[in-house]
Amino acid sequence: MSDINTSISFLGLGAMGTALAQTALQKSYDVTVWNRTRSKAEALRESGAQVADSVEDALLASPIVVVCLLDRDSMTEQLYSRSEYLRGKDIINLTTTSPNESREINRWAEKHGINFLDGGILAVPPMIGQEGASILYSGDANVFEHHRDILDIWASSTYFGSDAGLASLYDLALLAAMYTMFAGFFQGAAMVKSEGVSVSEFAGMAAPWLTAMTGGLSGFAKVIEGGDYRQAEQSLEFSDLKAMVEAAKAQNVKTHAIDMVQGLIQEQIGQGHGRDGFERIFESFRQLKRR
Amino acid sequence: MSDINTSISFLGLGAMGTALAQTALQKSYDVTVWNRTRSKAEALRESGAQVADSVEDALLASPIVVVCLLDRDSMTEQLYSRSEYLRGKDIINLTTTSPNESREINRWAEKHGINFLDGGILAVPPMIGQEGASILYSGDANVFEHHRDILDIWASSTYFGSDAGLASLYDLALLAAMYTMFAGFFQGAAMVKSEGVSVSEFAGMAAPWLTAMTGGLSGFAKVIEGGDYRQAEQSLEFSDLKAMVEAAKAQNVKTHAIDMVQGLIQEQIGQGHGRDGFERIFESFRQLKRR
Repeated sequence: MSDINTSISFLGLGAMGTALAQTALQKSYDVTVWNRTRSKAEALRESGAQVADSVEDALLASPIVVVCLLDRDSMTEQLYSRSEYLRGKDIINLTTTSPNESREINRWAEKHGINFLDGGILAVPPMIGQEGASILYSGDANVFEHHRDILDIWASSTYFGSDAGLASLYDLALLAAMYTMFAGFFQGAAMVKSEGVSVSEFAGMAAPWLTAMTGGLSGFAKVIEGGDYRQAEQSLEFSDLKAMVEAAKAQNVKTHAIDMVQGLIQEQIGQGHGRDGFERIFESFRQLKRR
Repeated sequence: MSDINTSISFLGLGAMGTALAQTALQKSYDVTVWNRTRSKAEALRESGAQVADSVEDALLASPIVVVCLLDRDSMTEQLYSRSEYLRGKDIINLTTTSPNESREINRWAEKHGINFLDGGILAVPPMIGQEGASILYSGDANVFEHHRDILDIWASSTYFGSDAGLASLYDLALLAAMYTMFAGFFQGAAMVKSEGVSVSEFAGMAAPWLTAMTGGLSGFAKVIEGGDYRQAEQSLEFSDLKAMVEAAKAQNVKTHAIDMVQGLIQEQIGQGHGRDGFERIFESFRQLKRR
């Protein structure tokens, strides 16, 4: 449906919105932009974008509207009073919203005959259009399929299903894993730094080490899905981090990250699962429905 | 110094000690083994190892003694009363000991004219002798250099310096980062599982994602080493995980891992560093010497 002369309107020109619009211009799409602070549109105008005077003008200009505003509130402020301008159009939302916020906006869109696709971006703005960027989508499958050529100029695109909250949930889950991994890196770096090892030297060891260890995640997943933690390679008792925590404290290092893991291990051992596999700590993240 | 007819004695035949001795036999080293429970030596005898009747016999048999016992206590129990059998010999310790325990054993060794190299293994037993296994060493540099050909049959070998505690510290630091990463994976998996996404599907996304994100560690390290957190790409305020924590709770998922990270972020923001880079949470792992 979309082709190289497709018009796309962009609402919101922060660093991410600007990167998205700039990439579309480079691929010769017909781009209209709007931003509350108009001066932020100048660079895009010089690259060939139309700058709309109002949100209404931006919405009238294109059948596809890419929204990349600050948050849910700024998004609903701009859109909810203008549903008549959006009827029949395709919204691609790249504003960061929670799963339930995305679902709420999707309900509003469905009520007004608007086709809503929600996206979660796994990239920083300079990565848009480059190798390694990834955007997760959920919501209206037709919007995803019809505009796949546009989506793919920004990043690799993955569709998770019609529940509009799924992309955001997946995005947050991957970011949760990332932030936690970073905290673990800082924990380890602080341990070796206490003996004068540079953080850069540790990073040089930790990056390939952690990469190699991601190879174990699919094995954990199989045990968890199988539901029998006795099939695991390494027991919770063997995983006890007491010695690690003590060694860190002996080096005058604080132990926030490994205390968290040790707490999960101890919780599962305390419930009588010491002989079960380490991956049983997954159960500590679930509400207390016992298997 | 060592060559293909070098004799090596192994004390301790748990899964790891057995893998180490078995690999040495495969490479045609002259292997003597001892284990408290003698039956564990049978498979090695069949592969060509000499089985010693006593610790003393094992120590007499070789100039190189590889120790892989349960812990520090079982190690000192076997060695401390037998220093006369060890004088002038090279001990390679692959028992898991804390940094300070390794240093203590090293002091005992130096006092008795024993050459002590401490190792920390980054591998599970089936990985010994395979691609991907890594062993970290510190302590006597001569032992490391003279027996490098032996060490390299087990794993890639890295030497960290004469402080015998360094290998263990480095080992624990890398394991700390790994365990924390695993907890982050389980956190994310629980979030998507709450909407019925399988843990295996999440693992398929999380492994390449986390691998890509390890690419950021060297950048964090540079900022930390540079000592100016204002040079960072992403501010602590921008990193606030409140929305992520709320989204997880809304999905009935417990938030142990991201609560830990958010606590570190809030601690640094609370100290007035909100505009500084995310990597400032490294400072939360250090004792309270303010920069």
